[in-house]
Amino acid sequence: MLQTERWGLFELSLPGRQDGNPYTDWTIRATFHGPGEDVTVSGFYDGDGLWMVRFMPRFEGVYSWEVSGTFSEQILRGSFLATPPAGVNHGPVQVHNTFHLAYEDGTPHYSVGTTCYAFALQKPDIVERTFRELEKGQFNKLRFCLMPKHYDFCLYDPVVFPYEGTPMDASVLTRQNFGQYNGAAPGNHWNFSRFNPAFFRLYDRAIRRLMDLGIEADLILFHPYDRWGFSQMSMEENLLYLRYAVARYGAFRNVWWALANEYDLMRHLSNEDWDTLGTALQETDPYGHLRSIHNCEVFFDHARSWITHCSLQRTDLHITTESTEDLRRRYGKPVVWDEVGYEGNLPHCWGNLTAEELVRRAWEAILRGGYCGHGETFLSPDNIIWWAHGGTLHGECPPRFAFMGEFLRSVPGCGLKLGHFRDDVHFQWDDYVAVPEEEAFAGSWYFFYYSLWQPSFRQIWIDDDTWFDVDVIDTWNMTITPMGRFRGRFELPLPGRQYIGVRLRRAEQPPLNG
Amino acid sequence: MLQTERWGLFELSLPGRQDGNPYTDWTIRATFHGPGEDVTVSGFYDGDGLWMVRFMPRFEGVYSWEVSGTFSEQILRGSFLATPPAGVNHGPVQVHNTFHLAYEDGTPHYSVGTTCYAFALQKPDIVERTFRELEKGQFNKLRFCLMPKHYDFCLYDPVVFPYEGTPMDASVLTRQNFGQYNGAAPGNHWNFSRFNPAFFRLYDRAIRRLMDLGIEADLILFHPYDRWGFSQMSMEENLLYLRYAVARYGAFRNVWWALANEYDLMRHLSNEDWDTLGTALQETDPYGHLRSIHNCEVFFDHARSWITHCSLQRTDLHITTESTEDLRRRYGKPVVWDEVGYEGNLPHCWGNLTAEELVRRAWEAILRGGYCGHGETFLSPDNIIWWAHGGTLHGECPPRFAFMGEFLRSVPGCGLKLGHFRDDVHFQWDDYVAVPEEEAFAGSWYFFYYSLWQPSFRQIWIDDDTWFDVDVIDTWNMTITPMGRFRGRFELPLPGRQYIGVRLRRAEQPPLNG
Repeated sequence: MLQTERWGLFELSLPGRQDGNPYTDWTIRATFHGPGEDVTVSGFYDGDGLWMVRFMPRFEGVYSWEVSGTFSEQILRGSFLATPPAGVNHGPVQVHNTFHLAYEDGTPHYSVGTTCYAFALQKPDIVERTFRELEKGQFNKLRFCLMPKHYDFCLYDPVVFPYEGTPMDASVLTRQNFGQYNGAAPGNHWNFSRFNPAFFRLYDRAIRRLMDLGIEADLILFHPYDRWGFSQMSMEENLLYLRYAVARYGAFRNVWWALANEYDLMRHLSNEDWDTLGTALQETDPYGHLRSIHNCEVFFDHARSWITHCSLQRTDLHITTESTEDLRRRYGKPVVWDEVGYEGNLPHCWGNLTAEELVRRAWEAILRGGYCGHGETFLSPDNIIWWAHGGTLHGECPPRFAFMGEFLRSVPGCGLKLGHFRDDVHFQWDDYVAVPEEEAFAGSWYFFYYSLWQPSFRQIWIDDDTWFDVDVIDTWNMTITPMGRFRGRFELPLPGRQYIGVRLRRAEQPPLNG
Repeated sequence: MLQTERWGLFELSLPGRQDGNPYTDWTIRATFHGPGEDVTVSGFYDGDGLWMVRFMPRFEGVYSWEVSGTFSEQILRGSFLATPPAGVNHGPVQVHNTFHLAYEDGTPHYSVGTTCYAFALQKPDIVERTFRELEKGQFNKLRFCLMPKHYDFCLYDPVVFPYEGTPMDASVLTRQNFGQYNGAAPGNHWNFSRFNPAFFRLYDRAIRRLMDLGIEADLILFHPYDRWGFSQMSMEENLLYLRYAVARYGAFRNVWWALANEYDLMRHLSNEDWDTLGTALQETDPYGHLRSIHNCEVFFDHARSWITHCSLQRTDLHITTESTEDLRRRYGKPVVWDEVGYEGNLPHCWGNLTAEELVRRAWEAILRGGYCGHGETFLSPDNIIWWAHGGTLHGECPPRFAFMGEFLRSVPGCGLKLGHFRDDVHFQWDDYVAVPEEEAFAGSWYFFYYSLWQPSFRQIWIDDDTWFDVDVIDTWNMTITPMGRFRGRFELPLPGRQYIGVRLRRAEQPPLNG
């Protein structure tokens, strides 16, 4: 019997009709009956007379399946065995305990993402360089666009296009004039009802490679950075595309649906249109993958029920992840900052942060029970910039983001929240402290973070009785220095540098010499 | 004939009654008739049977005077010649063009202040060290308290007290317990109706030395950091003290009245009480010196008519001087940030900024047409900290504040404001640009500041026709690098470091090779 891991990808490729427009004229669906679920999924046309069905089993055991639809005269049936997950396979990521994320097997997912918007559409050697970076394991989420990208520093054509047709001539574009070709520029000829399977197969491979690395694929369906007209399609065309993407990629356990990047720059779409698309996503996806919508200038109303978590771009030059707790309170959902500025030296304000500042913003996010992603925008002679193309990382952030991920995995339970002290203790107004989100760990674990300040010592006082093992954590230099076991009010020497944290872990007994 | 410079200090010391309580029982006032003014001033008792009158002439020429009051049976008369000002004497500083400051002779005053709260009450060798620093000319304003200061790192007794009486025993104080002695602590015995002239004479000398150095004395009358009860006096006692200070120090041209430091921590005084004190200051001071009131957590309503300018402490950990333009608009007065955090390594969040961050905050202020002062709080083995005691500066800020002052003096006219571009030019949302406040210089001068961002180049485009001489200004490394003469839209290479500005000055002709 065929075997697939639980949460693995079960796939059928079947011959069928290719007359007319297979993408719109014929249907294919499959039902799966397994030990804990009955699921109906849509299949999709993959070109050359081949039709595909993909399925992700959520349980172990024998599944039977049946494929039907107008694509074929036949009704096909079969079965497979879902085996125990292995390796990096912990299932899809879901919302956990309101503000956090966890894999379906219960393992916490502490999001440490990065962004390479157009990486999958670069030449193969650049794609390989990207994967060599990702294989280092510093990031567990990659945010990227399905549609090609037209923007400063990213002006040449993708290796393949999503639709049948021909693009405008890219050779006329320069850094000075590219803005004049935004949207549906002259010279493009596309058939928005006929997909190009070769384009989508590229993403099959990319998403699978990410899955095999244990990296979530935060797949952006719509975005405004376009010269081909893909951002200007009708709502009917948008829905055709969205449903094709869901049928094609929904069975990859690592997919997150990012409905849009900078939705608010696609000015011809109203909030109601986005609700329509988001609701379609929710209704079409049989697996309930995470769904988000990312802003430019204005946060979308993340209270909408089709949105599972906040995928945010900062809307202020200075206050970024410091507002994480406010947003948690406002929306009651996990807060993931996907763009708070990138490490780099671009002329654009969002692309020329120091590594120190980006790392600081990330720690400000986790301190408040949120998450913050990485991005990099260094000019390089070959014009390959991580944020757009992937390629090679040049900056100082990645190991520090990995260190932050390690730190998060040491938190008791799943995730942090901002702590509050009893009122009779005088704390500095910069005394931000994180505590475990889960009440079961209350009083046992604290993390103070001093951000851009550089105290040479601090007075710490949780209570009079509890012993704590105290570590000084240098988030920039990536060191954890044990300072000893303390209780009551104590003065802790600190390095007098920026980006220092102090972790307190409850000890069950006094120190040996105490 | 006696001579005094215009805006100099004319002083009379006269014998008189010393029975009863000379500070409350007898009066002394003087009238001055000069070429452009008739002024009545209050004198004050200086102890040992001596009464004093001080006067600042605002015009050149012969003044006659007459002293009267119950302090003496006699009416005394005389005259003096007010001579042209010389050296650093440009007259008192006043509000100029709504948002800026200028000396009475019209010279702009670009405020570059620093703070040494209790410097005048330190041992003489520390006071001398303070003046050695101030003589370097890096600062043109010193902010300090008249009343002694009780606070962390500043716990020993001042060299002298303002009232007759005896203080509590300071030897009981520690860094841990000092907070328990706030306000009118037990063990103090003072007569708040009898001043100690020796205390006030110290300030005569300090203010005069500052005046001779061309440094404004931003004299704080009330503040909450107290263990002696000076912050807890009745309103009648407060007014007696305020009038004594005005009579004594008002004739020093360099005095600014800072009604309070952190007024909102003196919780027994209402806003109406502060209005009473501020109005008394306005009515009592015949010279109309600058008047301000400095906050801790909440800005006072700077729209009050007795307030001449905003003397601000930042009320947010991250957004500080970036709000300067908003505050200019709200209050319609000069915005002077006197506390946005200090360079140092104290445990307190307001006292452990990097030099880079403090300098950045200062440039963010001037970019928006405000001003920002310096402060320093490095722990040192002798427990002498600039912010409290004066002494020796240890940080990296002072030459950079001096560089900023030099830069301001190069601005056409008097002072800057935030510039706005025509709508058809696309600028980055971090494209903050300062332009001269005075309309006469519109279009001739621009200053872009890139703050914490580190672009490796920027596109600049003011208009198509005007030639500009372009300088790259590294506000941290204190360099000004001429880049050449440009017009139209041009791409300017930048160092890819933080804290860079670009200055454009209109050139009347093309470059020689143009």
